[in-house]
Amino acid sequence: MAFGDENGVVVKRNKKVLLKKYVNGFVEESDMEVVTNETILLELPQGSKDIVLVKNLYLSCDPFMRGLMLEMSESHYMEAFVPGSVIKGFGVSRVLKSGHPNFKEGEYVWAITGWEEYSLITDTEKIFKIPFTNVPLSYYTGLLGMTGFTAYVGFNEICNPKKGEYVFVSAASGAVGQIVGQLAKLMGCYVVGSAGSDEKVELLKTKFGFDDAFNYKKEKSLGAALKRCFPKGIDIYFDNVGGATLDAALLNMRDNGRISACGMISQYNLEELEGVHFLVKMITKRLTMKGFLVGDYFNLYPKFLEVIMPYIKNGKITYLEDKTEGIENAPAALVGLFTGKNVGKQLVVLADE
Amino acid sequence: MAFGDENGVVVKRNKKVLLKKYVNGFVEESDMEVVTNETILLELPQGSKDIVLVKNLYLSCDPFMRGLMLEMSESHYMEAFVPGSVIKGFGVSRVLKSGHPNFKEGEYVWAITGWEEYSLITDTEKIFKIPFTNVPLSYYTGLLGMTGFTAYVGFNEICNPKKGEYVFVSAASGAVGQIVGQLAKLMGCYVVGSAGSDEKVELLKTKFGFDDAFNYKKEKSLGAALKRCFPKGIDIYFDNVGGATLDAALLNMRDNGRISACGMISQYNLEELEGVHFLVKMITKRLTMKGFLVGDYFNLYPKFLEVIMPYIKNGKITYLEDKTEGIENAPAALVGLFTGKNVGKQLVVLADE
Repeated sequence: MAFGDENGVVVKRNKKVLLKKYVNGFVEESDMEVVTNETILLELPQGSKDIVLVKNLYLSCDPFMRGLMLEMSESHYMEAFVPGSVIKGFGVSRVLKSGHPNFKEGEYVWAITGWEEYSLITDTEKIFKIPFTNVPLSYYTGLLGMTGFTAYVGFNEICNPKKGEYVFVSAASGAVGQIVGQLAKLMGCYVVGSAGSDEKVELLKTKFGFDDAFNYKKEKSLGAALKRCFPKGIDIYFDNVGGATLDAALLNMRDNGRISACGMISQYNLEELEGVHFLVKMITKRLTMKGFLVGDYFNLYPKFLEVIMPYIKNGKITYLEDKTEGIENAPAALVGLFTGKNVGKQLVVLADE
Repeated sequence: MAFGDENGVVVKRNKKVLLKKYVNGFVEESDMEVVTNETILLELPQGSKDIVLVKNLYLSCDPFMRGLMLEMSESHYMEAFVPGSVIKGFGVSRVLKSGHPNFKEGEYVWAITGWEEYSLITDTEKIFKIPFTNVPLSYYTGLLGMTGFTAYVGFNEICNPKKGEYVFVSAASGAVGQIVGQLAKLMGCYVVGSAGSDEKVELLKTKFGFDDAFNYKKEKSLGAALKRCFPKGIDIYFDNVGGATLDAALLNMRDNGRISACGMISQYNLEELEGVHFLVKMITKRLTMKGFLVGDYFNLYPKFLEVIMPYIKNGKITYLEDKTEGIENAPAALVGLFTGKNVGKQLVVLADE
């Protein structure tokens, strides 16, 4: 690897993950491929103010990336992936060269970046300076990045939570769920989570401080499980999974309950979506369901940091990462999200600095 | 019929509609029976401050009454019906005798009352004085009563509508739908309605001023029909039907769209509810769905009258009633709601004063 002159940067080797073809049904490792562009020349043309060249350190594996692999993908905050091109996601990076006055060489950022060793980022509105480096940098792929911020927006801003309320979180040991549960506990709520293994259930109860948790794969009836965990009903359902769990939650909501529609991971790999049957409860129980994309709320990021940083400093938040080493293993790490392989926030480590 | 002394009132004849048994599946006339209590004695005991005896003039037929016929009914604003007892609903009545200081003999009220000629109303919080009598009294079963108020609350208060927005209303020629459409037009929205016959579609376009309308029974694909009517998508869906229409609307909503969940008449008579498959659009399009029961909003009734009365006086609102004469025909009128028999607000006329 060699860096070029003052007019630009040359990177000789750049390993990257490409989408091979649009994906229907379950995403598999073979839907992606890892290639090395031995001779790629990355340059910052002179006067190019909106280009930043970064070295990617940590890549975040997130369920929403599955949606961008569809041929008819709705791309909002991020563009849909194109076969033959590098896939993208949130990551933590170090600035190597910058044409943009806000970002300087050597600074750490989190941003939408390519799944590759080095990226030229042109959408500089989606680069965020890393404000505190007294925490592990990898936290900015999760707790202090998109997923932690998603938990904060989806719970604190969308659900209007109050002390003493009953909160249910699905996919509760996942990157977003584990933080939602802890934010809810810190607010004085009663919190129950669902997860897909006994190991994860144990983690929720012992490590993340949930009041109760259950393994949804072992329950005969999700409705009965929720009835057992919430004899008085649910005030807030933070939905990461959709489908049958959403249906069961609708049956167990209390009057004036709120549902934060954050993700529907149970549905992303289905060719035919499951039906949700009990929406009539929206009326009889006067429920509000609100979907959101965190990209619409970045103006609240400083407010989020004000809330979360003291919790981290005082050890009030526990955060669990599941690290995979090397870009070669990135496709498997992403696929693992959908089989429930990861315990905690799944990320890929490319380099430490 | 004879009225008694100053201590009470005797009514010799009181025809009424009883629920015969809890209803599963489609409600039928035979689920109810009309009986005459020849010897019933209705009295206002001395000092009974919370009792009002009324003569019922107009009974309102409303889809929500179906839900109160279930054995496992969720009763909120109104108690569920009990086999062998009179069914209840909204109606317009004249006060015959009152123990309550707010209501005086000879005054007209709208209230939750029995489906019978005379009722003793004990829940005096659910009696509303009729403030204007320069409109047909029957309007208080609809336009100026629960259904008109439902349209106002569900559209103006829940949906946060803005001039120029695209509004879809299902069951649009029904009691609530016809008013929602007109409120939306008066706000400067583009409004399309769906209904179940060509006659109703014609009414929507010619009489109620909808910009467009379609007969959902004649469309091969509801999604395609909505795409044709809303090439730019739907900002507000006022949902009276649920099920497949809700699914089709989800596919056609615009970003940040709002869904007012007012009723799901397509589902009320089904033993197994239909699934709604495209809730994932709640997330990608950042939609909000809010269910409501109008009984929670009666504090806004005076505000509603301030909005609606000038429209009525200036001929800006068209209102269509479908009147059935006689309590003997009341069960058929109620059942007719669910087969789409009525055109406009269905009510039963018992007496004119």
